[in-house]
Amino acid sequence: MPNSSATAVTSAALLAHWQGHRRLTRRLIEAYPEDKLFTHSIGGMRTFGELAMELMSMGAPMVRGTVTGDWQTSWDRNPRPKAEILRAWDEATTEIDELWKQIPPERFSETIKAFGQYEGVASDLLLYVIDNEIHHRGQGYVYLRSLGVDPPPFYDRS
Amino acid sequence: MPNSSATAVTSAALLAHWQGHRRLTRRLIEAYPEDKLFTHSIGGMRTFGELAMELMSMGAPMVRGTVTGDWQTSWDRNPRPKAEILRAWDEATTEIDELWKQIPPERFSETIKAFGQYEGVASDLLLYVIDNEIHHRGQGYVYLRSLGVDPPPFYDRS
Repeated sequence: MPNSSATAVTSAALLAHWQGHRRLTRRLIEAYPEDKLFTHSIGGMRTFGELAMELMSMGAPMVRGTVTGDWQTSWDRNPRPKAEILRAWDEATTEIDELWKQIPPERFSETIKAFGQYEGVASDLLLYVIDNEIHHRGQGYVYLRSLGVDPPPFYDRS
Repeated sequence: MPNSSATAVTSAALLAHWQGHRRLTRRLIEAYPEDKLFTHSIGGMRTFGELAMELMSMGAPMVRGTVTGDWQTSWDRNPRPKAEILRAWDEATTEIDELWKQIPPERFSETIKAFGQYEGVASDLLLYVIDNEIHHRGQGYVYLRSLGVDPPPFYDRS
């Protein structure tokens, strides 16, 4: 393929892209009715609160591990107030910005083992974490609609 | 940011990443009960059949436009048999592979106007199309579960 090794997405662009998604996910958490966050579900799937906790256990920890090799994360999915989740979300946003600029340029194409078990090229693993957020947030859109709440528009990442 | 302009994702990696997602989306379409494809919905949202049609109207046409400047696409979302959707999906898969290698390397960072109305950096617009697929497929996961069907695993892109 003639353009195989061309840069499709730079480091700065991927971070900006992800942080745009994170702003949208934050709005979804904010829009979610507090009393439904850890109770509402469809088809036996996890609650949006549990999904949000999963996203937080993968986001900043993924970047931290990519930079430092420290793959610690939390498996706690217990219910907590929405304000606490939003506070942790914002802390993670700052942490991701700080850590991202410490990713060595060559690291993106190196093979690493995330969280001691997921082996792959670092950029694929980072994309996986972003995609997983989009995927579960899409699920959250349906939950919200089923609760009669209009979710924030998908295209707005401001 | 010291690694700002580092390559996070190459052209070949982004294509492979997308085609992996496309294989998963195809499996979801395949798993969907034919009689529910254009009838089942939650919270007043579009059916998964309509969403699949939207994804097809954005996928190959986005790459075609990026290469050729021809932004034609279809707005037809009328119900049709699943087999027809899968056939069109497979044709688009081949078309995307063919067109992708014709993207000039510098195009990814150029500002273009997709479909005559969405102005942005080409790589952001390509990512948008991929993300939109993940988003609506996540919606499809909930629809499928609500119909009592186990969706294919998210992590398997083979």
